[in-house]
Amino acid sequence: MLADRVKYVSVPLHEEDRLAERLIKEGKKVIKMNSGDPTKYFPLPDYIKEAYKRAIENNKNSYSNPVGIDELREAVANRYSKRYNIDIKKEDVFVTEGVSEALSFLNFSLIDSNSKAVLFKPYYPSYLPYLKVYGGDSIILDYKEESAWSIDIDQLEQTVKALKADGSIKKVRYMLITNPNNPTGTVLDRKTLDRIIDIANDNNILLISDEIYDEIVFNNASFTSISSLGKGVRRVILHGASKVYDATGLRLGFIIIPEDDEESKQLKEAIYELASLRLSSNTPAQYAIAEAISNEAEHNKHISYMVDSIKRRVDIILDNLPKEIFKSVRPNGAFYVFPRADLSRLDIKDDAEFVHKLLEEKYVQITRGSGFGAPGHVRFVALPDEDIIKDAIERIKEFCNAHSR
Amino acid sequence: MLADRVKYVSVPLHEEDRLAERLIKEGKKVIKMNSGDPTKYFPLPDYIKEAYKRAIENNKNSYSNPVGIDELREAVANRYSKRYNIDIKKEDVFVTEGVSEALSFLNFSLIDSNSKAVLFKPYYPSYLPYLKVYGGDSIILDYKEESAWSIDIDQLEQTVKALKADGSIKKVRYMLITNPNNPTGTVLDRKTLDRIIDIANDNNILLISDEIYDEIVFNNASFTSISSLGKGVRRVILHGASKVYDATGLRLGFIIIPEDDEESKQLKEAIYELASLRLSSNTPAQYAIAEAISNEAEHNKHISYMVDSIKRRVDIILDNLPKEIFKSVRPNGAFYVFPRADLSRLDIKDDAEFVHKLLEEKYVQITRGSGFGAPGHVRFVALPDEDIIKDAIERIKEFCNAHSR
Repeated sequence: MLADRVKYVSVPLHEEDRLAERLIKEGKKVIKMNSGDPTKYFPLPDYIKEAYKRAIENNKNSYSNPVGIDELREAVANRYSKRYNIDIKKEDVFVTEGVSEALSFLNFSLIDSNSKAVLFKPYYPSYLPYLKVYGGDSIILDYKEESAWSIDIDQLEQTVKALKADGSIKKVRYMLITNPNNPTGTVLDRKTLDRIIDIANDNNILLISDEIYDEIVFNNASFTSISSLGKGVRRVILHGASKVYDATGLRLGFIIIPEDDEESKQLKEAIYELASLRLSSNTPAQYAIAEAISNEAEHNKHISYMVDSIKRRVDIILDNLPKEIFKSVRPNGAFYVFPRADLSRLDIKDDAEFVHKLLEEKYVQITRGSGFGAPGHVRFVALPDEDIIKDAIERIKEFCNAHSR
Repeated sequence: MLADRVKYVSVPLHEEDRLAERLIKEGKKVIKMNSGDPTKYFPLPDYIKEAYKRAIENNKNSYSNPVGIDELREAVANRYSKRYNIDIKKEDVFVTEGVSEALSFLNFSLIDSNSKAVLFKPYYPSYLPYLKVYGGDSIILDYKEESAWSIDIDQLEQTVKALKADGSIKKVRYMLITNPNNPTGTVLDRKTLDRIIDIANDNNILLISDEIYDEIVFNNASFTSISSLGKGVRRVILHGASKVYDATGLRLGFIIIPEDDEESKQLKEAIYELASLRLSSNTPAQYAIAEAISNEAEHNKHISYMVDSIKRRVDIILDNLPKEIFKSVRPNGAFYVFPRADLSRLDIKDDAEFVHKLLEEKYVQITRGSGFGAPGHVRFVALPDEDIIKDAIERIKEFCNAHSR
């Protein structure tokens, strides 16, 4: 009965979610180190709550402009303009129901069964389904683990060369990078970004940069937004309230399209029409996040506290995971640790089995690397309180001991 | 650059929205009788606001279960079970970001380029794009104006017969009715619904009923939900918070799938996966609407007040529109008046020009019937305060006088 495209939506990760739900119902104390949801450990700050409640009280509960209230679009435009020293207008900003909807809108607008897109693995798991359901083919290149999970520029250049040679470069609708990266925590350096922008520009490929973790950077790494590079180059920046503003359940994402060339204009128009079809996103939440972005003093206090805490939690994971099994590049951003797991020492065949049995036997939920296109790895979320992380790691050690051969 | 499907999304109605926006910016006092948004005239009730604020205060701000928090799914299931004397479980209920997302999920899951769906015109404008973008063909039958905008059952039976004769009945993925209807305000009678259910059942066609206005019924009309009919027949009910709970900007819709046959189960699974891909809908709003549905005493007070007010406003429009031009079936539900406009008396060629010029010259925004598949008609929203409606009708009379030939 169902349309064929449904098969691309099914995510194997949900198996663990269902198992975890069952275990919790059975009264098991499950430690969830799988969900990239900061609000569980860093409650939404009071100044955002107050703005949210004020909007409700003041009857800001109607449908809004489909692409967002002026206050929020302006706040996002000002933030990007100021932070990255460029000139973003409010008309360049489109508010969506999370970055997920942004990905859906972009693929809906850009992809058909005759098109391709360049992704890099490990990737955020939703990138691929949103491409495939609209008929697109993926060209999956590498973040190189041996180069601290940076993009393999040589591979990208060779791929582009091959695509030009056989004429299929024209089918490539976009190239999508994630910076800072989920799951690897890589913050791409300026030089790498410059080369990516040149390649996109030389080949007329739209460059999309998912920058939702842009303020969650540590170890003195320096984040560069593609908004600040490549003026005149057609590009899309994705951002949102979930991570940096600690507001996952409010479901607000932003699409920023800085240029006004003919193709960018067409894309803006398509996004407006798509947004109109679903009327609006949650209106009072938009007022809350407009305040969150505009109140820099309060925001800076909260994000500093979060980043400091996250860095410590990342370090605890890195320092305490059994080194004979887990080897990890040190992440410089986001809030994940993504080690390679040497399972040859265990009676476990792959990352999927590791994750499943760890949850079943020790009630610790982490995420299989194969879900990110990187089998042999697992992802830890460095958000829970330090004691919880330590407890989880003790359980993991017990698990590894019990399964060592 | 854009995918071909984008062309189906573009809605001509946005022209007027943009014109209205410009006029308002110029300081014109535009009367908006085009937007089906009750919150502008009936503020969200205090008990819902309090529940919403309480959820925010209590840190219910995380991602939720992708298909909704238990409290809301249970509240919706209980409401339907009690109100329509059936047995809906919380697992039959899926929370979406408005009915728009529900339509998107259903068409995504059910429609491909080899499939058809039966709609009836006049239709809610989004039905068609959500079908067409996924490649579906529409079979558009009639609500018959001369039968008080009821469904033309004979036409439906003949159409099904023809589809069976040429074998294409197998391609029909669903039949979608709206009850009470937007834009006509028709409340379908029990006998008509019974025949529709029989036809759906005999031909193995999924029946979808958009019942978002189910409590907004007047003139002693009696509403019947398809949930209460045709036990064992595969069907989907759409509902949501926007109209009956007066909460448009909260963006919550509900998909209810009462049966557990193999095809219904597959559809439920597809909806779960699609919802997971976009993580969750706004979490604190879900708590607010769970309270709105559960607190029957407060809800009944508010909806009675709304329905009484709407009925009076509908009557004012019906009684005061110039009768030599506008002829309307009396609506028994929802909050629209949808007259046929006899433009032969005016120097205006069609409903689109009428609506456009009325806005441009008299600053009254209504909606063209052609947007609903019913050219020659216009839609009035009976939500603004009585004085505003009267002012609008005066302007319409002046407009008609100025344009009479």
